[in-house]
Amino acid sequence: MNSANTTDKLAQQIQFLVETEKLKAILRRNSPVNAQRRENSAEHSWSLALMAIVLAEHASQQLNLLHVLKMLLVHDIVEIDADDTDCFDAAGNTTKADREKRAAERIFNLLPAAQATELQELWREFESRITPEAVFANALDRLMPLLQIFHNNGNTWRELDVTSQQAISRFQPIGDGSVALWNYARSLLAEAERQNFFSDASGKHH
Amino acid sequence: MNSANTTDKLAQQIQFLVETEKLKAILRRNSPVNAQRRENSAEHSWSLALMAIVLAEHASQQLNLLHVLKMLLVHDIVEIDADDTDCFDAAGNTTKADREKRAAERIFNLLPAAQATELQELWREFESRITPEAVFANALDRLMPLLQIFHNNGNTWRELDVTSQQAISRFQPIGDGSVALWNYARSLLAEAERQNFFSDASGKHH
Repeated sequence: MNSANTTDKLAQQIQFLVETEKLKAILRRNSPVNAQRRENSAEHSWSLALMAIVLAEHASQQLNLLHVLKMLLVHDIVEIDADDTDCFDAAGNTTKADREKRAAERIFNLLPAAQATELQELWREFESRITPEAVFANALDRLMPLLQIFHNNGNTWRELDVTSQQAISRFQPIGDGSVALWNYARSLLAEAERQNFFSDASGKHH
Repeated sequence: MNSANTTDKLAQQIQFLVETEKLKAILRRNSPVNAQRRENSAEHSWSLALMAIVLAEHASQQLNLLHVLKMLLVHDIVEIDADDTDCFDAAGNTTKADREKRAAERIFNLLPAAQATELQELWREFESRITPEAVFANALDRLMPLLQIFHNNGNTWRELDVTSQQAISRFQPIGDGSVALWNYARSLLAEAERQNFFSDASGKHH
């Protein structure tokens, strides 16, 4: 590649990276452990990537760790345009796929063509949850909020009157990625039940 | 490995991951682009990992990208105990190495022994700046604040009366990791000079 091409490509890549600074202003429903503020999607993505490094050995299937890390580091970038859609937001979830698809087209296409395709494919792979890497990455994306809410005395579950059955359905995909992580998650959910973090079907805490 | 061992290891790994939530409360001197608040070291680590994926092709030496990503994702964890030490804080920098060494021993040793060693080695490798992966990772750790300060109208340089010569010395290690990135950085520094982001040696802006 000649030097003029390098300069052009680099300018596009830097423009993309500056654009991704906006992910630091996208707020999620949860808080970091022991924090009063809401978490942003950039620091959340860091947590998931670190989790992948630490917990990869527990995956049910053989993994390409580099591929898992790439997927986790780009999986939330579409939220820059589409915003974070809370898992209990029924209306938001009917339009989520369409909003995120348009976001992916705009944002990843700031990059040089081959790289735009690579990152858009990584995002699609995460969303379709078929490959071993995507299944494990999605398991981590469920496990992290479970840890955060549990260690924040069940804050989000209490605020939204979540029942233990709703929580179990929400977190069950952890088991597709790792039996060991799902066993661990179930022990936390049982402890959360004992500590009255969940409401019963009538919306009351025990 | 039997199931009791898996449970013990996993409990240690989760304890470490919950501890690393504290990195989200460690504030750096810089702000994200177009933000008024200071950046925390967790979201900063995400940016560097994403940069590594996007800019790896510009590295001067052949790289193991997985190794670069692991290094960048763990390189600031010691700040949980040692806090972020600003590059222009002369007193802080005389005690930085010692504070960070003690932090690394406490925090990484929350993990099972083999993994504690692996992560502590990654941190040491980043700090010693000798391997191609460490040199490139350090180049990105310099380039990101340059992009942020430039796109925030030179805020940190103006506040601290930084001269263009001080900025050049600070950012020069980018060139050890990538000639293309250093050429780009120099063009930004020249533009910053034209826009009067730097003070002259007497501490006045032109």
